[in-house]
Amino acid sequence: MNKILIVNGPNLNLLGTREVEIYGNQSFDNYMIGLKNLFPEVQFDYFQSNIEGELVDCLQNAVGEFNAVVLNAAGYSHTSVALADTIAAINLKVIEVHISNIYAREEFRHKSLTGKNAVGVITGFGLAGYEMAVSYLISKES
Amino acid sequence: MNKILIVNGPNLNLLGTREVEIYGNQSFDNYMIGLKNLFPEVQFDYFQSNIEGELVDCLQNAVGEFNAVVLNAAGYSHTSVALADTIAAINLKVIEVHISNIYAREEFRHKSLTGKNAVGVITGFGLAGYEMAVSYLISKES
Amino acid sequence: MNKILIVNGPNLNLLGTREVEIYGNQSFDNYMIGLKNLFPEVQFDYFQSNIEGELVDCLQNAVGEFNAVVLNAAGYSHTSVALADTIAAINLKVIEVHISNIYAREEFRHKSLTGKNAVGVITGFGLAGYEMAVSYLISKES
Amino acid sequence: MNKILIVNGPNLNLLGTREVEIYGNQSFDNYMIGLKNLFPEVQFDYFQSNIEGELVDCLQNAVGEFNAVVLNAAGYSHTSVALADTIAAINLKVIEVHISNIYAREEFRHKSLTGKNAVGVITGFGLAGYEMAVSYLISKES
Amino acid sequence: MNKILIVNGPNLNLLGTREVEIYGNQSFDNYMIGLKNLFPEVQFDYFQSNIEGELVDCLQNAVGEFNAVVLNAAGYSHTSVALADTIAAINLKVIEVHISNIYAREEFRHKSLTGKNAVGVITGFGLAGYEMAVSYLISKES
Amino acid sequence: MNKILIVNGPNLNLLGTREVEIYGNQSFDNYMIGLKNLFPEVQFDYFQSNIEGELVDCLQNAVGEFNAVVLNAAGYSHTSVALADTIAAINLKVIEVHISNIYAREEFRHKSLTGKNAVGVITGFGLAGYEMAVSYLISKES
Amino acid sequence: MNKILIVNGPNLNLLGTREVEIYGNQSFDNYMIGLKNLFPEVQFDYFQSNIEGELVDCLQNAVGEFNAVVLNAAGYSHTSVALADTIAAINLKVIEVHISNIYAREEFRHKSLTGKNAVGVITGFGLAGYEMAVSYLISKES
Amino acid sequence: MNKILIVNGPNLNLLGTREVEIYGNQSFDNYMIGLKNLFPEVQFDYFQSNIEGELVDCLQNAVGEFNAVVLNAAGYSHTSVALADTIAAINLKVIEVHISNIYAREEFRHKSLTGKNAVGVITGFGLAGYEMAVSYLISKES
Amino acid sequence: MNKILIVNGPNLNLLGTREVEIYGNQSFDNYMIGLKNLFPEVQFDYFQSNIEGELVDCLQNAVGEFNAVVLNAAGYSHTSVALADTIAAINLKVIEVHISNIYAREEFRHKSLTGKNAVGVITGFGLAGYEMAVSYLISKES
Amino acid sequence: MNKILIVNGPNLNLLGTREVEIYGNQSFDNYMIGLKNLFPEVQFDYFQSNIEGELVDCLQNAVGEFNAVVLNAAGYSHTSVALADTIAAINLKVIEVHISNIYAREEFRHKSLTGKNAVGVITGFGLAGYEMAVSYLISKES
Amino acid sequence: MNKILIVNGPNLNLLGTREVEIYGNQSFDNYMIGLKNLFPEVQFDYFQSNIEGELVDCLQNAVGEFNAVVLNAAGYSHTSVALADTIAAINLKVIEVHISNIYAREEFRHKSLTGKNAVGVITGFGLAGYEMAVSYLISKES
Amino acid sequence: MNKILIVNGPNLNLLGTREVEIYGNQSFDNYMIGLKNLFPEVQFDYFQSNIEGELVDCLQNAVGEFNAVVLNAAGYSHTSVALADTIAAINLKVIEVHISNIYAREEFRHKSLTGKNAVGVITGFGLAGYEMAVSYLISKES
Repeated sequence: MNKILIVNGPNLNLLGTREVEIYGNQSFDNYMIGLKNLFPEVQFDYFQSNIEGELVDCLQNAVGEFNAVVLNAAGYSHTSVALADTIAAINLKVIEVHISNIYAREEFRHKSLTGKNAVGVITGFGLAGYEMAVSYLISKES
Repeated sequence: MNKILIVNGPNLNLLGTREVEIYGNQSFDNYMIGLKNLFPEVQFDYFQSNIEGELVDCLQNAVGEFNAVVLNAAGYSHTSVALADTIAAINLKVIEVHISNIYAREEFRHKSLTGKNAVGVITGFGLAGYEMAVSYLISKES
Repeated sequence: MNKILIVNGPNLNLLGTREVEIYGNQSFDNYMIGLKNLFPEVQFDYFQSNIEGELVDCLQNAVGEFNAVVLNAAGYSHTSVALADTIAAINLKVIEVHISNIYAREEFRHKSLTGKNAVGVITGFGLAGYEMAVSYLISKES
Repeated sequence: MNKILIVNGPNLNLLGTREVEIYGNQSFDNYMIGLKNLFPEVQFDYFQSNIEGELVDCLQNAVGEFNAVVLNAAGYSHTSVALADTIAAINLKVIEVHISNIYAREEFRHKSLTGKNAVGVITGFGLAGYEMAVSYLISKES
Repeated sequence: MNKILIVNGPNLNLLGTREVEIYGNQSFDNYMIGLKNLFPEVQFDYFQSNIEGELVDCLQNAVGEFNAVVLNAAGYSHTSVALADTIAAINLKVIEVHISNIYAREEFRHKSLTGKNAVGVITGFGLAGYEMAVSYLISKES
Repeated sequence: MNKILIVNGPNLNLLGTREVEIYGNQSFDNYMIGLKNLFPEVQFDYFQSNIEGELVDCLQNAVGEFNAVVLNAAGYSHTSVALADTIAAINLKVIEVHISNIYAREEFRHKSLTGKNAVGVITGFGLAGYEMAVSYLISKES
Repeated sequence: MNKILIVNGPNLNLLGTREVEIYGNQSFDNYMIGLKNLFPEVQFDYFQSNIEGELVDCLQNAVGEFNAVVLNAAGYSHTSVALADTIAAINLKVIEVHISNIYAREEFRHKSLTGKNAVGVITGFGLAGYEMAVSYLISKES
Repeated sequence: MNKILIVNGPNLNLLGTREVEIYGNQSFDNYMIGLKNLFPEVQFDYFQSNIEGELVDCLQNAVGEFNAVVLNAAGYSHTSVALADTIAAINLKVIEVHISNIYAREEFRHKSLTGKNAVGVITGFGLAGYEMAVSYLISKES
Repeated sequence: MNKILIVNGPNLNLLGTREVEIYGNQSFDNYMIGLKNLFPEVQFDYFQSNIEGELVDCLQNAVGEFNAVVLNAAGYSHTSVALADTIAAINLKVIEVHISNIYAREEFRHKSLTGKNAVGVITGFGLAGYEMAVSYLISKES
Repeated sequence: MNKILIVNGPNLNLLGTREVEIYGNQSFDNYMIGLKNLFPEVQFDYFQSNIEGELVDCLQNAVGEFNAVVLNAAGYSHTSVALADTIAAINLKVIEVHISNIYAREEFRHKSLTGKNAVGVITGFGLAGYEMAVSYLISKES
Repeated sequence: MNKILIVNGPNLNLLGTREVEIYGNQSFDNYMIGLKNLFPEVQFDYFQSNIEGELVDCLQNAVGEFNAVVLNAAGYSHTSVALADTIAAINLKVIEVHISNIYAREEFRHKSLTGKNAVGVITGFGLAGYEMAVSYLISKES
Repeated sequence: MNKILIVNGPNLNLLGTREVEIYGNQSFDNYMIGLKNLFPEVQFDYFQSNIEGELVDCLQNAVGEFNAVVLNAAGYSHTSVALADTIAAINLKVIEVHISNIYAREEFRHKSLTGKNAVGVITGFGLAGYEMAVSYLISKES
């Protein structure tokens, strides 16, 4: 489990530069530096896109290249049958992360089409959710 | 308020060449010429895409470049949590326009996910809806 | 298009004297003065009632007397089959205006029975919505 | 009817290499060879994308280039107002195909937004569904 | 059963002067003349109002004055708990009439709150529905 | 309009022999005698079946044989797409009658699939509903 | 808290003269005499209307004239967005009373649009509910 | 695969003699002649009934007599648990055909209880749908 | 209680010859022999039909001939208003039996229209359910 | 009416020590002292439990021991069929009290299963709601 | 199958002492005496609790001690995910009994969460339902 | 953050002894030993109950005794308003854990009433979910 792909969906490229009172003033690129330091034994790659189908492409291409994916599909988690089908179709462990607690927000965010096909879902722990996902992957595989 | 971005979503590139009995035989490019003449004090830019995520990109990039956005997200207005999140995340006035009266069409067009986060919604006035949006932006800001 | 009737529904008579932090401290009577100055070529009349059926009466009587109606039916917009039937039955352009953005409020305000039969709906632009409606009527008819 | 475009949506590029127990071990490119042999009088083109808006683009561009389209929009069939609007807007025969029987799967796959505007829908016959669609197009037009 | 009150709800005062292609060119006042001729043994009175509460008043006041009521509450039939309660509270036979077939129109017209408490409902027979109601009342009471 | 077919659906053959406190002690055969006396100018025929498809057959065969049908489809009114399609397909006036007031009973009886395609619906007037239907047919046609 | 307005909605003027087995044989005017005797320190006024908008008018006019309102909006409680908006807009304590227990009646009576904006709701205690409301107002304010 | 049973449900016996503008002026008996000519190697039988249970009987009896069934259950497709259970219970390939596109009609026609247990569903191709079904059966079995 | 009618609905004639892994290899005729041996004091009759209306006929005709009915209406249990009305109309004890546990199957099988009017419902005990029903009838009546 | 049991459900034992900005800093034990002083003629007992079934036990045991119960079942009011059944089964007056206005909170708190079987419901008046309930009980019984 | 546990849920301890007109005047303890006499070969134990979690405990502890459980979870049948999970988790035959016919009562009693995981459900036969359950268990196991 | 309470809800006491193919053969007591070894700096306590209200008690009593709670409320997560209210009322960090992925199970398990008020939710990672929760608590607080 030494190659893990982090995938972020729509609007997560805005982290750290906007709504800093909610999401903190750390960009995700910055956060990736810390994450790599935290897990030096892991080879990370990072992909972000606002385009649903590019996320589908990315997950498909990860097969054979990575051992697992940590996915925060943001707004597409709740509406994308296509992404959910991708997770079911590829032979890769996918862990779903949400920065905010989706149960404490609008009702249309409570359901997760993609989460159904993921190993599990981590929601509400801020950026720490990504670390929790990586920790799980490492400990399960070592 | 002298820089306004007009953003059109899926299928609106077909205006003027098809279904002319409904939408008239004016292309949106042509309409932009008239719009610019009508508001010579405004510097307009125009973007159209059929791709949901490119509309997200476009809105994100408009920050700092434009004072406001007039958005007709067409079919994505009713289904896109991602676009709605973008409008909420960026610090830009967004006005939503629909050419036809969405209340007089199928029930799934009555709701607007994106409209919730916009300043307001103008629906049913044909292409004049864009002018009404621009007029509002100018008068509110001068 | 030189005779336009402005019709306001329930509680809109309270504008300017209550909840001034939301609606401003301008009464609608005061606003009418500004509106008339803005459009000197239009002959305006104004009617307000808290009674659903009086709004029905008023719209029926407007036929032959006015060229168009700008209607803010407030709470009745969401519940009145009778008012919606009136707009469908009379041979008059009706434009629906809401001061606040109905998509950003409770879900029962998202639907508009009356809007279905109107030319179009303008929602979320404050009192400016009335001006936008009048502007549209003038430009379309001259 | 001698120019037909075959359009596949998200995840259908994975055919033949994954989930072979369900979908068989034939790639769609391979299948296209067989299809062309079966209908030598037809000039086929093939397009696949995981991106909703690229499917919209593709359908729009097919006008004037092709006589008909056989479309398997996969996961987007059930959620895409934009694609449904495209089919309604273009002046082209579109036939919808699903490889599996959508009525025998999860309830959210039973409805088809795109199917509403297609000529018809063929679901459950595996890859043979594409041949059935092409046969129909030929026999109707000859 | 010689005193019968005919009560019409919102917009039915427009009969005969508008939408003549649907409702014919006969005003209800005119129709009342024919109705009286048809049933010379009945003493009719007629009331119309666009105001929900005036219909409530009217039904309450009919007690002791009339033997039965023929009520077409139009748009209020589908929304008025108040009118339904009135029919339940008063000790008077009420027959509900609809000119058009409410089952062949929008779904929100299929239900009738007022019809639940009426003796019965006649829908779809045009103005003849009123005669059918009066005929029933006479034959049952003589 | 001198040949009218009366069609009764499931359980209506039990009239007069059971639940006499609700439906009276008159059999429908007996009622038919009175109905014929009431309208000597009409040639009646009567059909009853508990089998949905036999009612479909009966309505189909009535074309060319009768001028109109008075139909009480009882329990099938609320569930039968097949019967509703039949009424839409045949070129015959069909009037729907219910003995009890369907709005005052269980909610699943409030909707009428068959009523949508009938001329109109008469509900709640007991057996008199059949007379009202016949009266309407005669008066409209003479 | 020495000026309290009692407001009753549709059909409550029938109290005491009809359905005496349910509501008792006391008219509300009579009841008001007892209420005044019970609370001699309070200056009461009483208003009843069957017209939704007159109740809106009445509540608006109570501002500055009364210290609190006890409101039984009857059938309008469950359907009137307009009345609910009024209670929210005026700066007056409103207590909602229902004579019968609305939870023990039809499901459409379980919800209360107006109750949401009231201080509280008292339901099921018969006419005593009005006394309970007045007692609360006095004790809270003295 | 040389013995195929064609089964038609309610109202399909009316084909060719009524609503010719929609369904064409060809009777199904006539169509059967063409179908037999088109597939001389197949031994066809044809059954039509308006009675739900006779369709159940027919499907049960087809076991051992036919190699496959092409079924158009029309109105019963959307409501019949019994027919759906039959298709699941018998050991026979059943293909469901609808002449019109059920996705383009009323919402209650969008679901298919019977289609769930069929091999697949062909909808919207007119009478050609039967040929497509037979073609599929032959090609799959030869 | 010595004459009991066993009534089976659609597809239950297939018992014992098909899906033997689920329902066992005993035909219902065979089962009837065992049932008669088990209850020698009871005079049984047995009726099966796939036709909804024939089940209605059968139940009606059972009055006066039998003391009670054990009914397994299979797929019609969940959809037949007509059968439910029959059970309510006839003066006969009806006990509903389902072989499989309807709560452990698809959600549309959880409701039972016919069960509402039966004495009680026995579901999930296989063929033993019929014996349990007969046992109850005997013990209650002796 | 001199023996009244006050019963509080889950989390109401936290009153006065937590969330004091909402509920005040008075514990319920303290409040009970004031309540007893206010009604010296009443013999009170008080029970609180967080366990649904202990509330059921408590209500059952109150029969014969108390003349009436004032019940605030808190979260169980909205979900407990068991508690609702208890109130229906025991022969005791039960009055339901909620401290906050349940109509002004989340939608799942608007319904009250227990309230249906209570005499009445008092909601939104803070701790004063208990006094109002006791006052009612005394005045009704003296 | 000689050790069977009878488990009753909330309010069933009131049997025989209250609502005797519905449930008879026999206590369940008394009924247990008769049940033991009826099945002398069975060793019975009986448990009743009003507390959901005690029923969970009881079912868990029954494993290894009893051969089967007859469970009437009363109000918890319709709401308890916890009890349903218990029945699924333990390796014991559970038969669900309801004294009254749950299909003939309020709609929220029609569903049974616990019944899904039971062997089967017996509803509507009064206390005899317990005997039917025991009879089934004995006959299946001997 | 050195005192953490682990709380398990209904049926979780069965872990390790039943359904070992799903949940593994490790009891939770055993798992606690490993957990303590993994986090020697934390002082753990463990509580399990099948009784909803005891979980409420336990959470209330944890205030002042523990720094945080890791809660797996199992079946009560989806139905308990009382537990959700407790989490909101107490001033303690609560993290919700589910062993299985609740999005991949029945729809009624997708919603979490308790999760709304927790810091976050971890679902689908087996027993490792508890470790992930503890890790988060430690790292956030050190």
